[in-house]
Amino acid sequence: MPRRYLNLTPLSEALAIMRREFPSPGRAESVPLREAVGRVTAEPLYAGYSVPIADIAKFDGYAVKSGETRGAQDQRPLPLAGYARVNTGEVIPPSFDAVVMIEDTWDEGGIPRIRKSAAFGQHVRRAGEDVRAGELVLPKGHRIRPFDIGALATYGIGQVRVRSVRVGIVPTGSDLVPLGTAPGPGQTIETNTLMAEAYLTGIGATCRRYGIVPDEPDLIREAVGTAVAENDLVILSAGSSAGTRDFSRDVVEELGEIVFHGIAVRPGKPVLLANIGGRPVLGMPGYPVAAQTILREVAGDLLSWWGLSPLPCGELDVRLARRLASDLGFDEFVPVSIGRVDGTCWATPHPRGGGIQMAVVRANGYLHIPAAREGIEAGEEVRVRLTVPPASISRTLVCVGRRDPVLGELGNRLAETGYQFHCCNASTVGAVLALRANTCHAATVALPDIASAWSDQVLRYLPDVDLFRVPVARTEVGVASADPPDAGSLASLRVANRPKSAAAQFLLDSWLDREGIDASPSGVPADVRVCSALEAREAGLRFTPIGHESCDLVVREEAAADEGVAALIGAVRSPEFRAYLRAIGRDPGDEDASGVFSA
Amino acid sequence: MPRRYLNLTPLSEALAIMRREFPSPGRAESVPLREAVGRVTAEPLYAGYSVPIADIAKFDGYAVKSGETRGAQDQRPLPLAGYARVNTGEVIPPSFDAVVMIEDTWDEGGIPRIRKSAAFGQHVRRAGEDVRAGELVLPKGHRIRPFDIGALATYGIGQVRVRSVRVGIVPTGSDLVPLGTAPGPGQTIETNTLMAEAYLTGIGATCRRYGIVPDEPDLIREAVGTAVAENDLVILSAGSSAGTRDFSRDVVEELGEIVFHGIAVRPGKPVLLANIGGRPVLGMPGYPVAAQTILREVAGDLLSWWGLSPLPCGELDVRLARRLASDLGFDEFVPVSIGRVDGTCWATPHPRGGGIQMAVVRANGYLHIPAAREGIEAGEEVRVRLTVPPASISRTLVCVGRRDPVLGELGNRLAETGYQFHCCNASTVGAVLALRANTCHAATVALPDIASAWSDQVLRYLPDVDLFRVPVARTEVGVASADPPDAGSLASLRVANRPKSAAAQFLLDSWLDREGIDASPSGVPADVRVCSALEAREAGLRFTPIGHESCDLVVREEAAADEGVAALIGAVRSPEFRAYLRAIGRDPGDEDASGVFSA
Repeated sequence: MPRRYLNLTPLSEALAIMRREFPSPGRAESVPLREAVGRVTAEPLYAGYSVPIADIAKFDGYAVKSGETRGAQDQRPLPLAGYARVNTGEVIPPSFDAVVMIEDTWDEGGIPRIRKSAAFGQHVRRAGEDVRAGELVLPKGHRIRPFDIGALATYGIGQVRVRSVRVGIVPTGSDLVPLGTAPGPGQTIETNTLMAEAYLTGIGATCRRYGIVPDEPDLIREAVGTAVAENDLVILSAGSSAGTRDFSRDVVEELGEIVFHGIAVRPGKPVLLANIGGRPVLGMPGYPVAAQTILREVAGDLLSWWGLSPLPCGELDVRLARRLASDLGFDEFVPVSIGRVDGTCWATPHPRGGGIQMAVVRANGYLHIPAAREGIEAGEEVRVRLTVPPASISRTLVCVGRRDPVLGELGNRLAETGYQFHCCNASTVGAVLALRANTCHAATVALPDIASAWSDQVLRYLPDVDLFRVPVARTEVGVASADPPDAGSLASLRVANRPKSAAAQFLLDSWLDREGIDASPSGVPADVRVCSALEAREAGLRFTPIGHESCDLVVREEAAADEGVAALIGAVRSPEFRAYLRAIGRDPGDEDASGVFSA
Repeated sequence: MPRRYLNLTPLSEALAIMRREFPSPGRAESVPLREAVGRVTAEPLYAGYSVPIADIAKFDGYAVKSGETRGAQDQRPLPLAGYARVNTGEVIPPSFDAVVMIEDTWDEGGIPRIRKSAAFGQHVRRAGEDVRAGELVLPKGHRIRPFDIGALATYGIGQVRVRSVRVGIVPTGSDLVPLGTAPGPGQTIETNTLMAEAYLTGIGATCRRYGIVPDEPDLIREAVGTAVAENDLVILSAGSSAGTRDFSRDVVEELGEIVFHGIAVRPGKPVLLANIGGRPVLGMPGYPVAAQTILREVAGDLLSWWGLSPLPCGELDVRLARRLASDLGFDEFVPVSIGRVDGTCWATPHPRGGGIQMAVVRANGYLHIPAAREGIEAGEEVRVRLTVPPASISRTLVCVGRRDPVLGELGNRLAETGYQFHCCNASTVGAVLALRANTCHAATVALPDIASAWSDQVLRYLPDVDLFRVPVARTEVGVASADPPDAGSLASLRVANRPKSAAAQFLLDSWLDREGIDASPSGVPADVRVCSALEAREAGLRFTPIGHESCDLVVREEAAADEGVAALIGAVRSPEFRAYLRAIGRDPGDEDASGVFSA
């Protein structure tokens, strides 16, 4: 009788159930030392012999019997009685117990002489100083680091028994096509299994990706059966079409038992775990960010439980730049960009949609909002996990506001100077508030190109701050339509889209007002859409200009001298960047509007 | 005219000189996406198309024209006029602008009806919501993470241009034999190049290890010439014998210019950097921990400068458990074991010798003492770099004191419970002081097995602390000699070694006193050595017992209930551990001496 979990299982409970249901398969394999980095020892490793294996000289010189050197003094040099010439690293013959450095001796009649007696054990590396024969080198369950390799080799360990987990990854969905194929209409490139392979291999699993299985129950049944037989864990990666998921569920229910279906985690909710013949089969959601969450938090947890070890990843205590709401009972994972602003590390959240992979690509860490929290307040201290080296945080410039595509080129230019440029999307108001709270290095605001906008929309919100303004680019905004020109007859108008920014909305409203046109709320069929001149030209549409929008970079004047911020301002103003704007058909910002302002 | 740096160059200056001398070779290669994790982009990557490529449905349901749904109400349901059935992820036909979820409709006469109007854009994933065609995905210089792979695949990027640095690693030294060979007398297993390969590959370099080159200038010259021609950076790994290093220096001086020889870093001082035909040749020290420091701090720095990116490694602010002296002007790197004791993270240093690889294996991080510091005080806050995942710190138990080999087995047993057991060597006094300062979870003390030792050597130093004592193992100590038994004639005695512990010294002194024997200071030739009964038996020596030494585990009573500490105590007392002791010929600790004590 299959067990069903119709309601969402809390994440912590889901993990506990999973651990109870699936003890470690306890598989191990022998690998040559060279391939052992990142693997986890399956049994303790002991030194086969002592290192050094015998007493050895620390310096070039003479091995002596310390007792025979007693009495040597500056005033009463002594010839060495018995001695053996030794070089650094050479074994000291058994009858000797100390080394005299060659520079502390001089030769007289072929016999070295000393001015100072040698202490017992002087300049000798004792046998077993590093490790003694039979001593534990690594316990079971140790993730092998690059520098462990040298030690293991030194102790004569050339093969290592390491834990092994075989993961089979099966993509299902008739809409899927493999990477390298141009997707046709309604087709999706199959990418989640590639990502799963990259991630789980990093944890130390041995992954096998199977071919894409179309939405046919018989084929899915066969593929699942094969994968379960050949692996310790099977991951079914569903395409995003509805049918796929249903078929997968039916098949696993038929072959085994559903352990849970749906957990209270965002993104990642529609995950399914089944037990087929004692082996876990994990149905991974199709949305890529949801899939990532399940790989990290569920599959990763199972592999840790089975004794593999995740990659070291940094953690950092930071403050949250703006409030994040979250539903009670849901564990949420939010990609964030972290930067150190004026001595404090701030995390600015990116959008949370399961389909927005770019949010994760743009982020340098992520925040876990526990199920017991109904969100986190702005300014609250939180611990984030990093997806970049911690040292890079101090080389990260966080910019909040309009994410004009040309900022990408600024990112490229900054990368040359060793800075990472992180742009977090926000409205002009959001950008100004971030600047006011001093949680970002810079803000980008999109303003209608009229005299009062800068004062009304920026300065007035920052009364006590000197601002440095650098126009980045200007955009001609207008309304575009596919219809043949029909000027003059614009008494009423249906507008297809909401303008992207408040600035464009302002320009549209002013124009409609000026022209005395009644506009219907957005809807289809539409007469026109609001867009830039460039977009209209590219789409071959008729374009009626309604004004200009200016995208400006704004920083606190006190921060403008900061090395990174200065590099950013320099990049905006550089002739190369201005030439780039012209080359792609954009207007550079108005340099005359640049300067320091205060309310 | 070769430049020479006869004096030690400060580390920071050496790195600056190196960066000036060797600009990036700027090499790039194309790799398939699957192999791109950990590599660094050589050029910006842009999205080839928008994702989603068109507006798609977020849910199963009907695509509608939102304008046509206006007026639908609970009291006034509306049949859908024009609509198209869509499933999650399917493209919405161009004339529609919203989706009504199937569960919000019902069928009447084959026509779906609704009770609520649809808003413009409702349940629609807009084209380009994730990424727009031509938008920057990754800037140049970005280290590709596992989850970036999914995004790149989604955006149609199947091949990636990544930075490439070819590193040639040449082992030199007639004393070296390859791993897998049993080293004869005076031979050393060649391990440093294996370690260099593991480490530098992790940074993203393409490494090539060459065969071992014996100490012959002609052969070294030939090998260096080949390696320089085939690589961007050459690492010469010298054996530890003196001759090797000299030959290497002569050869590189002949083929090019010495940039520096010797830097003020510990360990790692004897590093050599040369410029041969514009390419850097780095002479790495032979001592393994010195070699590691140079790989990490010098070779790693050059590779970062050239645009590769080190693995993310965690950093942590901790307190230093005991004072560390350091010479002004030297950058020192000290392996440490970090544990969280009673809410505070403490770092306990391991020995600093360049030959003690086990110190690095045992450590979970390392501390950098900058050149400007003359050491760091006990209790001072320092930032350490971790060599393990940060999360594992809270599962680490730090034990300070006698590192009896049987503690290795305790480490194995604790690994089963998910705890890592770190033993840092210290005298009994050092262990008691660590316990007093509360910088460790447990201490191990070696005490002579006489009634007063526990009071005199432990309790009296911890007057205000309740202690929990668990004897771990007893050792019979005595004097051993190879000579045929000559009992009774022991009027005077030459002792070969200093006893390992104060406890054994105490037993020796008491015995000498009791027996009325005059002992000479340590020296060779010796009559006897102090060792355990087991060691004497294994070495086939005549053994005269002089007493017992007890190795005890001591924890603060208030910490005994802590999950990890309780697991440790449980492991010591377990029948399995006691059986293990007997199996290896050791005496289990005296359970009767176990309990809570206070002064």
